[in-house]
Amino acid sequence: MSDAERTPGGGSTGAGDILQLLLDGRARTKAELVHLTGLARSTVSARVDALLGAGFVAPAGEAASTGGRPPSRVAFNPGAGLIIAVDLGASHATVAVSDLSGAILSSKTRPVDIAAGPVAVLDLVVAEARALLGSLAKGDTPVVGVGIGVPGPVEHSTGRPYNPPIMPGWDRFDIPAYVQGTFAVPVLVDNDVNILALGEQTASFPDTTDLIFVKVATGIGAGIIAGGQLQRGAQGSAGDMGHVRVPHSPDSSHPAGEDRDLEDLAGGSAIAATLREQGIDAESSLDVVELVRAGNPVAIEALRQAGRDVGEVLSTVVNLLNPSVIVLGGSIARAGEHLLAGVREVVYRRSIPLATQHLAIVQSPTGERAAVLGAAVMVAREVLSPAEVDARVAAGSR
Amino acid sequence: MSDAERTPGGGSTGAGDILQLLLDGRARTKAELVHLTGLARSTVSARVDALLGAGFVAPAGEAASTGGRPPSRVAFNPGAGLIIAVDLGASHATVAVSDLSGAILSSKTRPVDIAAGPVAVLDLVVAEARALLGSLAKGDTPVVGVGIGVPGPVEHSTGRPYNPPIMPGWDRFDIPAYVQGTFAVPVLVDNDVNILALGEQTASFPDTTDLIFVKVATGIGAGIIAGGQLQRGAQGSAGDMGHVRVPHSPDSSHPAGEDRDLEDLAGGSAIAATLREQGIDAESSLDVVELVRAGNPVAIEALRQAGRDVGEVLSTVVNLLNPSVIVLGGSIARAGEHLLAGVREVVYRRSIPLATQHLAIVQSPTGERAAVLGAAVMVAREVLSPAEVDARVAAGSR
Repeated sequence: MSDAERTPGGGSTGAGDILQLLLDGRARTKAELVHLTGLARSTVSARVDALLGAGFVAPAGEAASTGGRPPSRVAFNPGAGLIIAVDLGASHATVAVSDLSGAILSSKTRPVDIAAGPVAVLDLVVAEARALLGSLAKGDTPVVGVGIGVPGPVEHSTGRPYNPPIMPGWDRFDIPAYVQGTFAVPVLVDNDVNILALGEQTASFPDTTDLIFVKVATGIGAGIIAGGQLQRGAQGSAGDMGHVRVPHSPDSSHPAGEDRDLEDLAGGSAIAATLREQGIDAESSLDVVELVRAGNPVAIEALRQAGRDVGEVLSTVVNLLNPSVIVLGGSIARAGEHLLAGVREVVYRRSIPLATQHLAIVQSPTGERAAVLGAAVMVAREVLSPAEVDARVAAGSR
Repeated sequence: MSDAERTPGGGSTGAGDILQLLLDGRARTKAELVHLTGLARSTVSARVDALLGAGFVAPAGEAASTGGRPPSRVAFNPGAGLIIAVDLGASHATVAVSDLSGAILSSKTRPVDIAAGPVAVLDLVVAEARALLGSLAKGDTPVVGVGIGVPGPVEHSTGRPYNPPIMPGWDRFDIPAYVQGTFAVPVLVDNDVNILALGEQTASFPDTTDLIFVKVATGIGAGIIAGGQLQRGAQGSAGDMGHVRVPHSPDSSHPAGEDRDLEDLAGGSAIAATLREQGIDAESSLDVVELVRAGNPVAIEALRQAGRDVGEVLSTVVNLLNPSVIVLGGSIARAGEHLLAGVREVVYRRSIPLATQHLAIVQSPTGERAAVLGAAVMVAREVLSPAEVDARVAAGSR
């Protein structure tokens, strides 16, 4: 075997690298790939054949002939595999199936109590995924990965939740191992705010390299994209905005001199508690959202103040990371423009001018579908990475 | 010309990519490079010859022969170019010359008043650089780039300072254009905290991907490395810790209910002002450092409190970015362990456990040499990037 024909995956320009060139969706001839890569023609041929064999690329018609047999073209084949994308919330589960481009083919949301524990919830997720796959009737197409977002901190490298406050029974539970009992493929687990950030970027801000997604619901958290990359930090706990202390603000309702965690001040449960102190019947985030939608002026003012408190922390985030977009999502953020108004009021006043002059602060344009989209994109990037593609191609040729 | 012999720079595996493989310093034969890249032998030969012609690589002896003429090896040649690395402070300028690996060959520090303005300061820097180059007697070796760190915010893409508070006369001054009047090469300008972060990472934490460098001197700022990349943000203002508002702390000396910018509370000038209020003669950061070194207990307590205030903001940074190392530098941080003790006291108490369990908070192990080292590394990464190498090789072959 010559060097030029060695097994893909052993060097720095394998089949996976050829596939990267095709992920833009354009069909190309082998001659075009030779020109783009500088690889020998025999090498390109061997690698394209391997990608064809593994299904990652497919024939895509013939190019215009310059005489003789017209050269055939190949293109990325997003239908070569399916991804199961899951978004778990405190009280719902969305299960979706996407192709390798992250495009959602089918999706279903149902009420689920996350506190029922990992076995009950994941059994239901797996059953729902099987049902969706059955109804899609793509029996030959393999599931190549599973992506799951959960409402709490996750050690991304192991896929285990880590002291998640609203997920009793899930602490350190090995989610990948349990799901792999049914789907023996890579299972990636992440904090829901991280997959929401990826989903927002993919759907609505594809050219933005510095984006902060902030979820304001029962709890508060952030997904941080900086320099084009999702930032999870050294242990995967980056983006924990909910436990940042908020300075006492003169226009705040809490006692002077007392600093509190942002979540205890501006999360849905905290807002409900504030409303109860004022004699309004509000038990949860849901009640708060209903009151605001019904036009209750006390609830509306409470949301605007929550926005100011979130804005206090975001003004620090803006000084530190200089994002170009801040996206607000979650049930409290979606209850009208009141939270957004409070955030803008504080951030544009407090942050440094160089960091705010081109800063957009917006409500989530992508909405709830950002979660499963982000989970699908997270898995697609992993399974289509050069190393993973090379490994799969090598395994298929043995 | 066949595709395999096309001009380097036109495709995805050019001469620059070959050079990347050699940056680890190991010498390799052309056969080894063929094996590593999968490129055709004729392509590797053409690109290695181009790199030899441009001087980026040099012959590095012969490999063991398996019969016949022994194959020759090539290696990265860090001596092929020189980099001028400059660190400007409020009252000093350090000018250094490094090779392409960032290794400092010669360096000189002299007192300079940054407030003398860009023309006076840069004329002096350029003269000092010429003198260093003359004394190194490497007349044939070209200067390939200049890196300059300045004590204030910079729009990195243009190299212009942007409203720098302690650099009167420098606002929007086109530093690259002025320096290029003498050295017609790429001139990269950055906030000094960014080059300090790069220098610390290079010298002392090469395996750390999430590192925060905090400079506490007359002013306060941070350089942020997240996911292995220096993060400058959308406009280049990331890391502005000095203007983050600090919540009032019960053990703080400032009035209850009043929040202030971190720099107005814990910067060297602010500490001097606090000491003056207590009847101690202190005009500047320098006086504060002297008092602390002389064992003045009031000055020592002021530094510890400044550390607590810096720690308040860093506890937010830790929750948001989950770094594995925080490095404290700058004149105030270097005046003993007092500031460090105050920072640790607050950060380990306030930040979430998952983010602090493996977190190291240390005094700068690299010290002042981190600045010119970081400036040199910043330029080396730029001029040795595949695109820049390909462009240089192509220009040389015309």
